[in-house]
Amino acid sequence: MVMPQIPEDEYPFPSRLALGQIIDNLASALFPMRLGPRGLTLETEDAFVVTSLRRALPDLAAQVRMELHAGHAESEADIHAEAHRIICALAESLPDVRRLLDTDLEAAFAGDPAARSVDEVLLCYPALTTMIHYRIAHLLYREGAPLVARIITEIAHSRTGIDIHPGAQVDESFFIDHGTGVVIGQTAIIGKRVRLFQAVTLGARSFTTDEQGHLVNTPRHPVIEDDVVIYAGATILGRITIGAGSAIGGNVWLTKSVGPRSIVQQGAPNVSIERDTLEDWP
Amino acid sequence: MVMPQIPEDEYPFPSRLALGQIIDNLASALFPMRLGPRGLTLETEDAFVVTSLRRALPDLAAQVRMELHAGHAESEADIHAEAHRIICALAESLPDVRRLLDTDLEAAFAGDPAARSVDEVLLCYPALTTMIHYRIAHLLYREGAPLVARIITEIAHSRTGIDIHPGAQVDESFFIDHGTGVVIGQTAIIGKRVRLFQAVTLGARSFTTDEQGHLVNTPRHPVIEDDVVIYAGATILGRITIGAGSAIGGNVWLTKSVGPRSIVQQGAPNVSIERDTLEDWP
Amino acid sequence: MVMPQIPEDEYPFPSRLALGQIIDNLASALFPMRLGPRGLTLETEDAFVVTSLRRALPDLAAQVRMELHAGHAESEADIHAEAHRIICALAESLPDVRRLLDTDLEAAFAGDPAARSVDEVLLCYPALTTMIHYRIAHLLYREGAPLVARIITEIAHSRTGIDIHPGAQVDESFFIDHGTGVVIGQTAIIGKRVRLFQAVTLGARSFTTDEQGHLVNTPRHPVIEDDVVIYAGATILGRITIGAGSAIGGNVWLTKSVGPRSIVQQGAPNVSIERDTLEDWP
Amino acid sequence: MVMPQIPEDEYPFPSRLALGQIIDNLASALFPMRLGPRGLTLETEDAFVVTSLRRALPDLAAQVRMELHAGHAESEADIHAEAHRIICALAESLPDVRRLLDTDLEAAFAGDPAARSVDEVLLCYPALTTMIHYRIAHLLYREGAPLVARIITEIAHSRTGIDIHPGAQVDESFFIDHGTGVVIGQTAIIGKRVRLFQAVTLGARSFTTDEQGHLVNTPRHPVIEDDVVIYAGATILGRITIGAGSAIGGNVWLTKSVGPRSIVQQGAPNVSIERDTLEDWP
Amino acid sequence: MVMPQIPEDEYPFPSRLALGQIIDNLASALFPMRLGPRGLTLETEDAFVVTSLRRALPDLAAQVRMELHAGHAESEADIHAEAHRIICALAESLPDVRRLLDTDLEAAFAGDPAARSVDEVLLCYPALTTMIHYRIAHLLYREGAPLVARIITEIAHSRTGIDIHPGAQVDESFFIDHGTGVVIGQTAIIGKRVRLFQAVTLGARSFTTDEQGHLVNTPRHPVIEDDVVIYAGATILGRITIGAGSAIGGNVWLTKSVGPRSIVQQGAPNVSIERDTLEDWP
Amino acid sequence: MVMPQIPEDEYPFPSRLALGQIIDNLASALFPMRLGPRGLTLETEDAFVVTSLRRALPDLAAQVRMELHAGHAESEADIHAEAHRIICALAESLPDVRRLLDTDLEAAFAGDPAARSVDEVLLCYPALTTMIHYRIAHLLYREGAPLVARIITEIAHSRTGIDIHPGAQVDESFFIDHGTGVVIGQTAIIGKRVRLFQAVTLGARSFTTDEQGHLVNTPRHPVIEDDVVIYAGATILGRITIGAGSAIGGNVWLTKSVGPRSIVQQGAPNVSIERDTLEDWP
Repeated sequence: MVMPQIPEDEYPFPSRLALGQIIDNLASALFPMRLGPRGLTLETEDAFVVTSLRRALPDLAAQVRMELHAGHAESEADIHAEAHRIICALAESLPDVRRLLDTDLEAAFAGDPAARSVDEVLLCYPALTTMIHYRIAHLLYREGAPLVARIITEIAHSRTGIDIHPGAQVDESFFIDHGTGVVIGQTAIIGKRVRLFQAVTLGARSFTTDEQGHLVNTPRHPVIEDDVVIYAGATILGRITIGAGSAIGGNVWLTKSVGPRSIVQQGAPNVSIERDTLEDWP
Repeated sequence: MVMPQIPEDEYPFPSRLALGQIIDNLASALFPMRLGPRGLTLETEDAFVVTSLRRALPDLAAQVRMELHAGHAESEADIHAEAHRIICALAESLPDVRRLLDTDLEAAFAGDPAARSVDEVLLCYPALTTMIHYRIAHLLYREGAPLVARIITEIAHSRTGIDIHPGAQVDESFFIDHGTGVVIGQTAIIGKRVRLFQAVTLGARSFTTDEQGHLVNTPRHPVIEDDVVIYAGATILGRITIGAGSAIGGNVWLTKSVGPRSIVQQGAPNVSIERDTLEDWP
Repeated sequence: MVMPQIPEDEYPFPSRLALGQIIDNLASALFPMRLGPRGLTLETEDAFVVTSLRRALPDLAAQVRMELHAGHAESEADIHAEAHRIICALAESLPDVRRLLDTDLEAAFAGDPAARSVDEVLLCYPALTTMIHYRIAHLLYREGAPLVARIITEIAHSRTGIDIHPGAQVDESFFIDHGTGVVIGQTAIIGKRVRLFQAVTLGARSFTTDEQGHLVNTPRHPVIEDDVVIYAGATILGRITIGAGSAIGGNVWLTKSVGPRSIVQQGAPNVSIERDTLEDWP
Repeated sequence: MVMPQIPEDEYPFPSRLALGQIIDNLASALFPMRLGPRGLTLETEDAFVVTSLRRALPDLAAQVRMELHAGHAESEADIHAEAHRIICALAESLPDVRRLLDTDLEAAFAGDPAARSVDEVLLCYPALTTMIHYRIAHLLYREGAPLVARIITEIAHSRTGIDIHPGAQVDESFFIDHGTGVVIGQTAIIGKRVRLFQAVTLGARSFTTDEQGHLVNTPRHPVIEDDVVIYAGATILGRITIGAGSAIGGNVWLTKSVGPRSIVQQGAPNVSIERDTLEDWP
Repeated sequence: MVMPQIPEDEYPFPSRLALGQIIDNLASALFPMRLGPRGLTLETEDAFVVTSLRRALPDLAAQVRMELHAGHAESEADIHAEAHRIICALAESLPDVRRLLDTDLEAAFAGDPAARSVDEVLLCYPALTTMIHYRIAHLLYREGAPLVARIITEIAHSRTGIDIHPGAQVDESFFIDHGTGVVIGQTAIIGKRVRLFQAVTLGARSFTTDEQGHLVNTPRHPVIEDDVVIYAGATILGRITIGAGSAIGGNVWLTKSVGPRSIVQQGAPNVSIERDTLEDWP
Repeated sequence: MVMPQIPEDEYPFPSRLALGQIIDNLASALFPMRLGPRGLTLETEDAFVVTSLRRALPDLAAQVRMELHAGHAESEADIHAEAHRIICALAESLPDVRRLLDTDLEAAFAGDPAARSVDEVLLCYPALTTMIHYRIAHLLYREGAPLVARIITEIAHSRTGIDIHPGAQVDESFFIDHGTGVVIGQTAIIGKRVRLFQAVTLGARSFTTDEQGHLVNTPRHPVIEDDVVIYAGATILGRITIGAGSAIGGNVWLTKSVGPRSIVQQGAPNVSIERDTLEDWP
């Protein structure tokens, strides 16, 4: 009988399956009364949240350690300490994540006449599913676990067809209606109260290479300012700025910045307008 | 040891997981020889259907009660009676659902030269998966369980990338080829023998608000008459009518009604034509 | 397509699988820090218990309704009310169950020199597994759900080899060492601080029949008074009384009552003794 | 990348897990209304049975092929034909198995004053669980699949603590009360209406060896004639005969045949009696 | 009790669930260190691959037999032989599949500045998931199991939103960025080093019918030569050729062939260019 | 939203469920061709073993850390080091465990005329299941993980009805026939080639207490020398010695040592005999 060396700890790659369960547990901790288990009441809600996080966060730390181990030559102790720091930073920010998601939820409910209740939005809308994944992943990305973060947003991509890179920065009250085919790139910046429809791309126009010809990771995706609405199928490419309050029409192909309160339609000049008149548009 | 009040019945929110299993069971009751369990024969098929429905429909009733409870202040007895009424209405209509799905199946087989058999269509095509979900959800929506209905169509959306609101009305022999990114809104009306390709949107152009500024749920999506074909990426917005026998080209953006037998192409005027000449189009 | 009548509610037989999960959930509510989920703390323990019971008890009520439905011709409303009454009675008694189980736990720890901690007893000893099942089942039996009760004790029987009928009455601080093959009959009565070893039978000696020759369910199993110890393989049959403080030797076959502080050995006369001298026995 | 030879078919050992599921499926086909799925009615019962068997029997055939393959050097075709013959023989005998099990069920109900219904017996009593496994296994043993048969009875052994070798021959109306620790050897023969209690052994007294000193598989376990009752803990060894209508007392050690209507008690001579007087015994 | 005829073998339809597991097993055999189980080392990798294939390939053969059985009237022996031939052909080609996937992996890593490692690409990118499914499915399609092949690509379609027909021919170093909504038709031919973005369609422009009016399965999808890049939302229809080194802009609608090194943009003439100037495009 | 302190590592109690899976994995590593996965060959067997152990042993280490944490006030680093030491000691001894189990297997096959092959013994016999659990648990007990060890033997107890304390010392070629109800105490010592039947107890006769009256864990169970056979239901109590080559009859109650080659029968004097004459015994 052959006997292997027994490693003190094992570091396989982060597991998509495990991360799917962790993210579902975090989601139920964020919205315990709607996504949590049967039988919760207002009195026991807090305790459920605490217990869930005491399970989900150490599980997540284990996944982060796998990423750190695969990527670094650091000592075991350093990897443990670094993973713990990342998880604690996430834990500290979770109340903010909840507050941001509440604004997303409110934006979805306010923005879709077919939505009958906030419950329906949370249980049904792919946008909310995606934002729960993205907002957690973005924190992990920022704190230094980009691979785990990417797996989490790709889980959302597979579930909803919405592809947000965890590096993108998305402010409050963000809503994506229907959502299938939306792509938001790594360096995109999105302001408050922005609304997208299905199949919108916020992409890169060109890639920069360094002296050796390698691609360089520079800001290359759009900046969308506050209160912008972008209709289905619009493609916005490059590090350009869409001014606050603008509306970009369906199927528009846009590679140049537009000022605040612009209206951009296929085959038409950009026009600056007052948003009050937007209702009967596009 | 603390002791809670024990509720006589519990009403959590409807469960996406449970509804996923219920809809799969209903699907296998609708197509027992192809989607049902191993070992069925023509002799035992009917008994399998009866047994499956005696399980799936009470399970569905439990989900409907959760929706009714969350939304109403009615008595327990009323909620039970109402859920039972809804389920019985669904049961009565299931043979019609099967007949409609047979026309969808036939339309898919007839419309795709790559389809080798009706079996392949039923086992592989996202359109059929979606229509099974939609046609059941639409009945539930009509009978008064819109949240359960919406969860069911969102399950299909996640599985296939096709987003049909359960409120939409879709007549027989409907086929969507490939399907990813298709969006069909809540008040859309679709006639017989209509064919869509991937990424088609039947959406709203503007929203109506009431005196308080709240969005109002009025007819705001297109009416597609019989025998229309709409190619990939076309966007049709607002309560407009696409006349019978028309063909809408790929990527077209359309916000005005067109008469029967129209051909609409990007950058070209609308033309009324005889469908016999459509073959070499677009 | 054939369509069944859709029943308003369905009453299959109680499910052994479902009851196994319910009893495991109740066990984790009774001992949350040891049998409950990872991540609990003293602060969140109570909330976990409340939440668990709000799930497990309605699930149990559903099983009880199945038993009541199978056995009675009562109305739906009566069955619901009766099941609710039974579950509430169980809920009220659960703190007592916990207190009794704590005495069992303490008795096991005190009585086995191999036991290293109360944790080991709770996690490992078949006696504790059995008593958790039995003490809950006995309450259900008393309140009127004897079939559900019996399924629960048979689950324990299959898991541990210890067969206690839910009708038996067992007082505090009860311990069974090893346990495989122990049988305790329906009308047995067991006092405080009783200790059994494996393969002990507390059985019936004869059955009474009524005028039609049917077996009659009369008291027919032994009464074991306080502080009795019964060694492995002893068989005690009939409605006899084993006096307080007695010790029954291994493999003894006993069908007559013995007074307090008796010592009964194979092939030896019964002797009344002081328990202080019992240590070097049998 | 290394590439293995791909075998046309694979023959691992028979799987205990797979056989556990197969036997559960056969059990639900034998007692569809009590052990089958929710939602069955008298009208759909037969179809359920047919469908179940069309699944379970080919699955069982696959397990039998694994046994035949492991044990023989026969051709693929022979193994398939032989497995098919065995399964068809089992199928033909299943109605007899059901009839025999009905007599076992009736015997259990009639013999235990604690039994409240035939349902309780079927759902709770380890004896019935064991007999379902044994009666199917015995057929397989007889037809030539002794390893599969043995795995099936060992599954019952693990579930109930009752160890019946599939080679034993057990006639109708057989009941084992409590059951833990019962052992019935390979060549035992048991008549009609026999009743055992827990921890009864029907064992071998000595083994015969051939000229090379190997153990020889000869008749070496008891023959129990009709209407015998054997109380808890009795040990009956060797190819002896217990005459019809006899009663063997608890803990008795018996290695010699006794005539009809004998009563055997520990330390007492064997007495022939009329069974009518048995009531107040042992 | 009714008894069915017991079939010697059962041929239900191929199972999507089973094929999903088989394809996952094949994926872990293709990339054992990244998609395989925990604990593998370079020393044990080969043995894992061999063992996995010895399980996954016979399982796949069983699915192929179901397809052959459903489609043919051949004898059992022929079906077994044919399925075995297909599986052996697949096995022989798996090392090539791995080599092709390595080029896809390299192309993805080289083509996306957001990709940080080959691991990230393999674990996260929907393109790789899709290509693993497609490249295996294409082999099965070619060898004569088109239904099993189609189910496999539809599993990928559901997981990633990328719809590649198994009949399409795709050469090495193929990359699809983001991917949702991509459709590649049955007779498409794609050269080396081709790169697509999301929502690209390589579709058919018209269908050919035979004398009876039935659709005929002729070459009707585009030929994409080496080194072509096609940006998001472009639609390329019909049996046309996109010359080597061309770039097709986003949202372009193209139904005519273009020569090598063409640049095609919305609303602009086709221009032949040197690819070196492509960087700041589209 | 409340936020818990996030522990760097979590130490719940060892998990019976997890240990059940770990022990099954170790069993398949010990007997890969019979208990391992489908598809193994002699060539890939070793690699499977290595891979399995690289998974199962770190999983076991995690369970051991939970035990160490619950029992000690040591530092994290010490707990990790100690758990690693224990697991490495187990790994080093596994080849010996396999050799010992081979002798047990051979003893079972040689000792039961009903056994048809070593495969049957390994797949069916509760004795082998128990010994796999016990021999691993004994190593863990000796190395300092007695709680994990005890959980492992109690898993075997629940599966087979055989209760061996992990502290007992059992030499090679040990066989227990049938097994239900066997109890072997913590300080028992068993020589080579010993054979037990069902319901044999090797127990303690009395407990020693210290000055405070607490039970003291001293040698208190029997020593069984080589080549002893103990028949069903025999009870052997106290720190006595059963001399080599002895035979203890069924149901015997023995509390005094006997010399080598003794024969002990119920109600008969102890006799020293030659084992050659044992065949027609008891």
